[in-house]
Amino acid sequence: MKKALTLDIGGTKIYNTIINEKGEIISTIEKHSTPKTFEGIKSVFQEIIAKYEDEVDIIAFSTCGAVNKTNDKILGSTGNIAKGYPNMDFKSLSKKPVFVENDANCAAWAEHIIGASKNKAYSVMLTLGTGVGGGIILDNKLYKGKSGAAGEMHFKMTRENERNCTCGSWGCFEAYASGTGLKKTAEELSKNSEITTYDVIDGLKNKDQLMTKIFNRWQEDILNGIIGLSNIFDPDVVVLSGSMAEFVDTDYLTKRVNEEIVTSPTKVVKAEAGNYSGMIGAGLLALGVVE
Amino acid sequence: MKKALTLDIGGTKIYNTIINEKGEIISTIEKHSTPKTFEGIKSVFQEIIAKYEDEVDIIAFSTCGAVNKTNDKILGSTGNIAKGYPNMDFKSLSKKPVFVENDANCAAWAEHIIGASKNKAYSVMLTLGTGVGGGIILDNKLYKGKSGAAGEMHFKMTRENERNCTCGSWGCFEAYASGTGLKKTAEELSKNSEITTYDVIDGLKNKDQLMTKIFNRWQEDILNGIIGLSNIFDPDVVVLSGSMAEFVDTDYLTKRVNEEIVTSPTKVVKAEAGNYSGMIGAGLLALGVVE
Repeated sequence: MKKALTLDIGGTKIYNTIINEKGEIISTIEKHSTPKTFEGIKSVFQEIIAKYEDEVDIIAFSTCGAVNKTNDKILGSTGNIAKGYPNMDFKSLSKKPVFVENDANCAAWAEHIIGASKNKAYSVMLTLGTGVGGGIILDNKLYKGKSGAAGEMHFKMTRENERNCTCGSWGCFEAYASGTGLKKTAEELSKNSEITTYDVIDGLKNKDQLMTKIFNRWQEDILNGIIGLSNIFDPDVVVLSGSMAEFVDTDYLTKRVNEEIVTSPTKVVKAEAGNYSGMIGAGLLALGVVE
Repeated sequence: MKKALTLDIGGTKIYNTIINEKGEIISTIEKHSTPKTFEGIKSVFQEIIAKYEDEVDIIAFSTCGAVNKTNDKILGSTGNIAKGYPNMDFKSLSKKPVFVENDANCAAWAEHIIGASKNKAYSVMLTLGTGVGGGIILDNKLYKGKSGAAGEMHFKMTRENERNCTCGSWGCFEAYASGTGLKKTAEELSKNSEITTYDVIDGLKNKDQLMTKIFNRWQEDILNGIIGLSNIFDPDVVVLSGSMAEFVDTDYLTKRVNEEIVTSPTKVVKAEAGNYSGMIGAGLLALGVVE
């Protein structure tokens, strides 16, 4: 069975392991702090690759940032990582083939092959974390758009600028549905700038009235976004992943979405491919594993 | 060259003509009022088909309502047309093959083959009329979703219900970007419930301050929707068609969209396939004409 050395690159951590064509993790998961410079990041990549490349058939990167359609270059900027990072020449890092894909797209592919959207031809995955990532699978293929950058969940939730977004625009789904969005909503509704998402989740568990109201407002924003995506894509399933997804009531969302959409019934479910779905999906994509 | 008898079915009018594989209209365009009953509509279909079916290879319907993926049945309700119409057994109407597709999808395909999105693999078409229709072309194929109903432009523009939508939900793009939406915006900003879209367009031409403000608010709503669709789909082009599209400033929209999106640059353009693009697109799809 073929194997991939797979790396996940985020703004704070770099992970690596080896996976096989079944999407099974077959090696230790190693963790590194993301260096602050391009050269530092490149050194970490080189060390990992030197250590494992002889054992595998291909090197797979699950990375922050949009990736082009030939899966070898990052497009544009990538948030809180060294500025020069998008210029990384991934192909030159190994004598083995190298494959690069956006982390949310990788996670969506892992769900499609071994997780919550298995055997579903049409799915939309939303990664609810500090920001919101998106991965779209249409007719059993990862949707990349004309440049590779498709699936950015920056569609507006308001007609006027009531909240800036990290993307440089305003009012985006990400600005409301992310963990950062929950904190902002909490600040607005509690009039307390010190409030945290932990306060909201704790309060929700303890049936605190204000915290429940804040949480429900956040969940309604997620609902509103899913309604639009369901009318646009008519998906079999909408998968919620990421650190914030565990708090969401997917049965409630499924019921409400199906009450509001004009397309055919869909389901909202939680991700099942685990915390390392980015690495698993990158490996599966790199190894050409399709459903 | 193969030919299709092609019919366009709307709530008020039914049109028919014959087109060839180049998308050329090669017969008179006939027009009928849409009967109020299922039987009435069926009779009109039967008359048209009896008259022309021997001259053509296939019968193509461009219809209001979502159509299934085997292109032979309407899914669910279809607005202001006889209630039983979605139950029409299209295949039984002719001894020749019969093909059915949603009118906005047909119009989008006409733009793709002979119009404004020709030679573009990824496009989103928005039909701005009384309502808003949507047609999505991805990788040179019409996108239908899991059931056939995809491409419904009912994504929310507001977090709270500030305006009901014809779809039964509220706050949808259609409720703001349509002609009906323009009238509603005009009513709100002018505090005059008698105001019409003609008043707004006339006022815009005469540089009336209030009418210009109303028009610009409507155009910003269209802009906001296109920004979201561009971030989601990363399309080559967004095509605006329909009776309301002629008033829109596509150069301005192109500039503004590209200032706001995180995906790669796109273009907003007006449709070019003409008033009968629904019939042309249905015929081209039925004849299997691809780019």
